[in-house]
Amino acid sequence: MTAGPSAPVAPEHALVVGVDFGTLSGRALVVRAHDGAELGSAVHAYPHGSVQRTLPATGQVLPPDWALQVPADWVEVLRTAVPAALAAAGADPADVVGIATDFTACTVLPALADGTPLCELPDLTGVPHAYPKLWKHHAAQPHADRINRVAAERGEKWLARYGGKISSEWEFAKALQVLEEAPEVYARTERWVEAADWIVWRLCGTYLRNTCTAGYKGILQDGSYPGSDFLAALHPGFAGFVTDKLEHPLGELGARAGGLTAEAAAWTGLPEGIAVAVGNVDAHVTAPAAQAVEPGQMVAIMGTSTCHVMVSDRLGEVPGMCGVVDGGIVAGLWGYEAGQSGVGDVFGWFVDTAVPPAYHEQAAARGTGVHELLTELAADLAVGEHGLVALDWHLGNRSVLVDHDLSGLVVGQTLATRPEHTYRALLEATAFGTRTIVEAFERAGVPVVELVVAGGLLRNRLLMQIYADVCRRPLSVIDSDQGPALGSAIHAGVAAGVHPDVPAAAAAMGRVRRAVHVPDEAAAAVYDELYAEYTALHDHFGRGGSDVMHRLRALRARTLQQKEIR
Amino acid sequence: MTAGPSAPVAPEHALVVGVDFGTLSGRALVVRAHDGAELGSAVHAYPHGSVQRTLPATGQVLPPDWALQVPADWVEVLRTAVPAALAAAGADPADVVGIATDFTACTVLPALADGTPLCELPDLTGVPHAYPKLWKHHAAQPHADRINRVAAERGEKWLARYGGKISSEWEFAKALQVLEEAPEVYARTERWVEAADWIVWRLCGTYLRNTCTAGYKGILQDGSYPGSDFLAALHPGFAGFVTDKLEHPLGELGARAGGLTAEAAAWTGLPEGIAVAVGNVDAHVTAPAAQAVEPGQMVAIMGTSTCHVMVSDRLGEVPGMCGVVDGGIVAGLWGYEAGQSGVGDVFGWFVDTAVPPAYHEQAAARGTGVHELLTELAADLAVGEHGLVALDWHLGNRSVLVDHDLSGLVVGQTLATRPEHTYRALLEATAFGTRTIVEAFERAGVPVVELVVAGGLLRNRLLMQIYADVCRRPLSVIDSDQGPALGSAIHAGVAAGVHPDVPAAAAAMGRVRRAVHVPDEAAAAVYDELYAEYTALHDHFGRGGSDVMHRLRALRARTLQQKEIR
Repeated sequence: MTAGPSAPVAPEHALVVGVDFGTLSGRALVVRAHDGAELGSAVHAYPHGSVQRTLPATGQVLPPDWALQVPADWVEVLRTAVPAALAAAGADPADVVGIATDFTACTVLPALADGTPLCELPDLTGVPHAYPKLWKHHAAQPHADRINRVAAERGEKWLARYGGKISSEWEFAKALQVLEEAPEVYARTERWVEAADWIVWRLCGTYLRNTCTAGYKGILQDGSYPGSDFLAALHPGFAGFVTDKLEHPLGELGARAGGLTAEAAAWTGLPEGIAVAVGNVDAHVTAPAAQAVEPGQMVAIMGTSTCHVMVSDRLGEVPGMCGVVDGGIVAGLWGYEAGQSGVGDVFGWFVDTAVPPAYHEQAAARGTGVHELLTELAADLAVGEHGLVALDWHLGNRSVLVDHDLSGLVVGQTLATRPEHTYRALLEATAFGTRTIVEAFERAGVPVVELVVAGGLLRNRLLMQIYADVCRRPLSVIDSDQGPALGSAIHAGVAAGVHPDVPAAAAAMGRVRRAVHVPDEAAAAVYDELYAEYTALHDHFGRGGSDVMHRLRALRARTLQQKEIR
Repeated sequence: MTAGPSAPVAPEHALVVGVDFGTLSGRALVVRAHDGAELGSAVHAYPHGSVQRTLPATGQVLPPDWALQVPADWVEVLRTAVPAALAAAGADPADVVGIATDFTACTVLPALADGTPLCELPDLTGVPHAYPKLWKHHAAQPHADRINRVAAERGEKWLARYGGKISSEWEFAKALQVLEEAPEVYARTERWVEAADWIVWRLCGTYLRNTCTAGYKGILQDGSYPGSDFLAALHPGFAGFVTDKLEHPLGELGARAGGLTAEAAAWTGLPEGIAVAVGNVDAHVTAPAAQAVEPGQMVAIMGTSTCHVMVSDRLGEVPGMCGVVDGGIVAGLWGYEAGQSGVGDVFGWFVDTAVPPAYHEQAAARGTGVHELLTELAADLAVGEHGLVALDWHLGNRSVLVDHDLSGLVVGQTLATRPEHTYRALLEATAFGTRTIVEAFERAGVPVVELVVAGGLLRNRLLMQIYADVCRRPLSVIDSDQGPALGSAIHAGVAAGVHPDVPAAAAAMGRVRRAVHVPDEAAAAVYDELYAEYTALHDHFGRGGSDVMHRLRALRARTLQQKEIR
């Protein structure tokens, strides 16, 4: 069906496929290449999901903070979701001219030189460290701490490009954990591969490190990785990590990594030889999907957490950002990333654990969800009426404090405080967190000229209005429910040569509605007062005025440990 | 049935009646005078309860923060609950030798010189200011603020006897409000009477001001009230308040105010002429009921709020206490009072507004309440395991900050925080509040040698253990469910001459179990750490480190006002 030469596709019929690999499932989207029309999509859940409790092969219990994945699950998305999306679109596979993918990151795995995951070797299927470590594997925190300490002591210049701290989620911390906890797995690792690149390798047979993850997660700055002296200072056996296992040719975002292999064509039902784009990351591909590829257009992808990505022509070392990478979002511009650890997750926690039965019953009676009911009640409140301020750190603070041991706070509760009051205070707290990030960029000399929202939370109009009022900026919103998959499709369009570059493809295929939510001056003025309170609490509890959050967390850990011993 | 001479009652058969006038109902208890055995009781709810929304006579809407009562409701308790309690006890009314009462305070009313409440005059039944103001009438806050400011400016020596601030609930603030808002009612007021004294006046025809409310609520110190110069500085028309309307002969606690009138005998079914004790206050009569009449025995009456009362042979001006009064609890000793505004009320608010359906369902399935379920789950936690600290100021802080504009705070929440975690943190916060009060007494040179708990919350064993651990003291508990009514009965026994004085009567009739809850050293050590965190937050938010709570409350008030205008 797919092999052999075929007639060139007429430009107006050319299709591309974007595949978004998320935490629990993968989604394929079929898009018309010249105008971005979304024709059909399909989702396939990973059979093993996020592996956090026991290793599927053996039932071995995993330690806390571990999170693994199974590579075969990803391939299954190619085999099921892609054909299903083609069917849903009513598309002729012969019209498809390119495919591109985006992935969670840093999700990284040990592999042989031919790309075989170590966890697929018969003698290693029972070894946890042989599996891909999902982005939210947090057990390498001690290794990250050591990397940060040694880097600061040695004055490593790359450190400031990551806001002053690299994350336990990234390539070096996770690799160091493997070396120290499973040296036999480390020894057999020939390539330390980002999943974003591994899936492309499987599609086209070519291994290229994409400039996005190589920069943000792999500490590639100004053409160099951390040197072997530095690596040796972390662990003598780590000195050759970059040269032996990591370093590999780079691929620019939107470039053609290769042609679809016969094997992958058979999996997907797509024509052999069509363009396969260089790998990319879910948040970062969303920027072109929202037509935010000009300097200063900041995209907030708001879901369980929020990721902020922005391109700029200026290089600034923004304190507390996740990173700045040359060509990390669009070739030729600096790409910035920042984030908030808990957003929708915090709202969900509140709804699950802190809302009384009457609200659930009322929501059910109306046929809506509790979120919707609380939002409606909260929308009836005037700004400041609830008398509350919260800190949104229930999952720690990513930007700008880079401190995952912080925790949540609510101040101002009285016997008149009702669930919708606290719910609104939590919505507002996340908006204050975004304003804090925007102001950090501007103070570091990196202008933010527009805020664009993507992600599931953009459907909450109250939340959007709060963000507009708090940030005193009009909010634009992406006009697609499938931002990452559309972003991947845009890269496929570039890789296939339908569009000359990502900005041109974004202009043709991306979709945004500008200034949908406009700040209300009266509300914004009151929010200035509340933001001042938030900032005072933020600095008191987050910058050392009071270390109570760290002490409470340490006490909790100590207590749980003693409980386990007894 | 009750008039005329009768044979003297044999001492072993002598009965006394205690009547406890609460916020929403009155309770009568029949007690054997020589040993305090509780023979029977009855409760009668006030038909008008606490009048807070509309005036019953006219339907007129009351302003916010108002709370009135109807004197006829109190008389109805005498007519219904006393006979019912006698019947429940199977008692011969002829065996009753005395009756005593305790009341909420400061509950105060304007009356004619013969005791007629102004609200019972036909032309004043429609005037709100003619009614008794219940203790929780809080609309005289501006007047209290003025009293405190002027007293501080003039260096009035009595101010320190009230911890530095008098309350809006007390006699002077409420009277000043009447003068300024309803001068015609003020003009016709011949006596400004505590309800505690008014009910005794109705029982025996004699008006005496009891030394408890005269001191705690009426600013009587060292034999003098505030002078007319001071009163004139508040308002020229207020200069004669003490001499014209307030001053009146005093009655010592436990003394005989007079003999039961024929009218009151008819109401109650009790023998005419039996001893009627001087009036008293619910919290203060509980001390002898719990046999806590020696210096340093602090009784915490724990219910919706907590009141702490203690006698001492030392005079100390404890910052933030409610007051110290000579003979205010037991004649011949200094009586101290302190308090926590929100205790059971805060736990109740949490259960009503912050606990999800699954907990309610589980409690229902077990046939217990949600409080009981949360307590059971919280009891399984090790100290420190929840990682939280709370400030228990949802109703403001009475002692030691005397600031009703403070509010609640919780710090340390994560996505792993469950309702039982926060519930336990709130229980602990109130224990930290009690420790703060105990330490303020000791720092001021007034030793606290024993903690005795009374009130409904003593049934929560977890709460009691937390208090013992946090305060590092064994807790004694009253051994009666009807502390105030038993305390009144003790005073009736003294007034009737069955016992020579209140300490002797307390020894014979009171009931306490000593050291029922003993601190656990390991828990206490961890609580020392958490108490240090509480204290740091207490001082930061309560002593000016951050004024965010006041600003949030002011913003809330401003916002609500603007909303009303629109």
